[in-house]
Amino acid sequence: MANSVIWKHISSIDSVSTIALESAVNYNMGKSSHFNSNMKSTYLHIDYNHAMPTPFKYILEATDGRARAGTFTTPHGDIQTPVFAPVGTQGTVKGLTPSQLLDIEAAMLLANTYHLYLRPGDKLIAELGGLHNFMGWDKPILTDSGGFQVFSLGEINQISDEGVKFQSHLDGSFHILTPEKSIQIQENLGADIIMCFDECPDPYDRAYNEIALDRTHQWAERCLKAHSNPDQALFGIVQGGVFEDLRIESAQFISSLDFPGNAIGGLSVGEKKTEMLDILDIVPEYLPDDKPRYLMGVGTPYDIVQGVARGIDVFDCVNPTRLARHKTAITWYGRINISNQVYSSDKNPLVENCSCYTCQHFSRAYIRHLVKSNELLGPILLSIHNLHSLINLTSTLRSSILEGKFQDFFNGYLSNFENNGVGL
Amino acid sequence: MANSVIWKHISSIDSVSTIALESAVNYNMGKSSHFNSNMKSTYLHIDYNHAMPTPFKYILEATDGRARAGTFTTPHGDIQTPVFAPVGTQGTVKGLTPSQLLDIEAAMLLANTYHLYLRPGDKLIAELGGLHNFMGWDKPILTDSGGFQVFSLGEINQISDEGVKFQSHLDGSFHILTPEKSIQIQENLGADIIMCFDECPDPYDRAYNEIALDRTHQWAERCLKAHSNPDQALFGIVQGGVFEDLRIESAQFISSLDFPGNAIGGLSVGEKKTEMLDILDIVPEYLPDDKPRYLMGVGTPYDIVQGVARGIDVFDCVNPTRLARHKTAITWYGRINISNQVYSSDKNPLVENCSCYTCQHFSRAYIRHLVKSNELLGPILLSIHNLHSLINLTSTLRSSILEGKFQDFFNGYLSNFENNGVGL
Repeated sequence: MANSVIWKHISSIDSVSTIALESAVNYNMGKSSHFNSNMKSTYLHIDYNHAMPTPFKYILEATDGRARAGTFTTPHGDIQTPVFAPVGTQGTVKGLTPSQLLDIEAAMLLANTYHLYLRPGDKLIAELGGLHNFMGWDKPILTDSGGFQVFSLGEINQISDEGVKFQSHLDGSFHILTPEKSIQIQENLGADIIMCFDECPDPYDRAYNEIALDRTHQWAERCLKAHSNPDQALFGIVQGGVFEDLRIESAQFISSLDFPGNAIGGLSVGEKKTEMLDILDIVPEYLPDDKPRYLMGVGTPYDIVQGVARGIDVFDCVNPTRLARHKTAITWYGRINISNQVYSSDKNPLVENCSCYTCQHFSRAYIRHLVKSNELLGPILLSIHNLHSLINLTSTLRSSILEGKFQDFFNGYLSNFENNGVGL
Repeated sequence: MANSVIWKHISSIDSVSTIALESAVNYNMGKSSHFNSNMKSTYLHIDYNHAMPTPFKYILEATDGRARAGTFTTPHGDIQTPVFAPVGTQGTVKGLTPSQLLDIEAAMLLANTYHLYLRPGDKLIAELGGLHNFMGWDKPILTDSGGFQVFSLGEINQISDEGVKFQSHLDGSFHILTPEKSIQIQENLGADIIMCFDECPDPYDRAYNEIALDRTHQWAERCLKAHSNPDQALFGIVQGGVFEDLRIESAQFISSLDFPGNAIGGLSVGEKKTEMLDILDIVPEYLPDDKPRYLMGVGTPYDIVQGVARGIDVFDCVNPTRLARHKTAITWYGRINISNQVYSSDKNPLVENCSCYTCQHFSRAYIRHLVKSNELLGPILLSIHNLHSLINLTSTLRSSILEGKFQDFFNGYLSNFENNGVGL
């Protein structure tokens, strides 16, 4: 039934290079994982024998070069990829109601385990019916593991193979996060997609990356073992800094664990853009084709286009709302600092022909007035526009892939970006 | 045609004490003003001979005791009274989009002349198509005259019969506001209802009130003379502090100028609640029945119910959004400080059976989490609820008047308020 719908959809598209394969997600089911032809080595597949039924399913609908269009089915609905997920760190996308997020066609939100564990507490959220119910969001949610925030926000007290002891950035209280604890917290939160607890080292420190990678791999196995809720898909995370061999080793190991989806972590954390793209040229080739691929914490319109061109399906980033709070509008080709005097009597919308609520109703002059007056509506309208820009970009990329026109779009985008791109 | 619709509507209501009279607004048309039977004296009606066609019309649909239900027609649509107008001081109701304001059925917004004159400037707003276009609000707007803000926010440099010289609260720059300047600014802003420039003295200072009242009356005449745009209805303002004789004198004088609507200013500015109600017992009796009556800057649910009982039709107040930014929810009978620990795991909405977006989707526990986490969505959700509470209250009052059940509602409200009212 699902197959016929998919094929019907694809058959209506002309001259497309498509691979359409339906793959019920089989993690923990004892099947061997899907390695692609580029894979250099294999790892022992660990069967935790959890034999759980799963509501998750990934369908790769079309490819165009390495770019992919697919659908990931979750208990809270389908996610059509490529997709950009707005970030709701503390259980809210800053300044926007769920209704406004539905208006801009947000398909999935990300929330942060570290923040919600510290406040209001994952157990309280579980008592209140889980994160979907708590924040009034019925569509898919992804929670990270808390790993990245522990390393970037908390004050690290001790890292061991067991886990990380850290102090809260809120009140200095001591906490320990382990793979098992992270999974337990994420099960309490109840997101559709949850992430393995990982270590996030300085991307340039080779020695530390080697140690951290081993630990991240051990932790991935422990997360898999700790994970028990079949209504949550646990994704693995590839680490390895800027080191290609470590990245390949990590991609192979994580792939061997046969997660229902795989992520690339530790990028967009200060390394050069070219270094990120070099890693993205390699890693997806070592990840299974029949699982979604998530590039964590990325990114800008440029990074998203480059990521999709390299086979990435899922993106998230705080930039759209953070930039909005800094009076900045996103365009596909750069940024607009709307507080600039030049916009004081500008009747145009932020972006010509943009279909978002902000651009359909308000001028640059009005939004400049709001931000100059420190009015809450300034960052709200900018957040609506910025999130819409990235969501609209990913859906445009998806359409171009389904229509076999991704390469044209990509070339046109890069040409435009080189000529007109500013501030990215 | 309008009559038949109105009468049809009223004829469907049982046992109602109704006065239904249609009165095309006739200010500036040379007709004598409508004094009611309590009026103690009359003033010479000044005919400025502006003979303008006017899109404004007030229909008094029903009365119940002194409470009134009516409809005021403006170039941007009908306002059904009693009505509560959210305040958008700087051309935005803090934190809410126009779309959200439509959702809570806001019928009219108020914006502040003082603030918009200083930033971004009334001329700029005129260039950009006027305030409706600037802020994306197609329904009626009312602007105040700047008088109250000059006296409360600006640093007064000099008051004379000519006008007020003051320093901006933003940058200390010097400005002069006169009746003519206020009207000019308000014409540039382009609101449907504009207000006379008035002086706002300490309500207890008898000597000052006598002087200020004369000046306010002279300024009202000058505003009427300066007013030239027939698409804007200029309302007069009754002043006089807590002094009944001054209030009566002012109501009679302002009524004599035959404005299309009349306001009561200088209340809810620090006087005792009983003093405000005493003035409200008297003033509306001296205002014409066939024009809307606007109680400026009021109020709380209790004040609105008491005001409607005394024949007030229009209210505005910053409280709903200001309280929201101070973590406080409005109920008809009191306030809830949602940051209180007692709400930390409370699954209930802010107010049981409330139909607002906030109460339909979120728990007290979630909103408490938002305000404890300093999330923008906290004051946004509270503002939606608070504004909805007052708008819903005025529409409930309107229905009770149309159904002849206002006295029952009023008695029930007061009884409930005495038993359960807190924090108002």
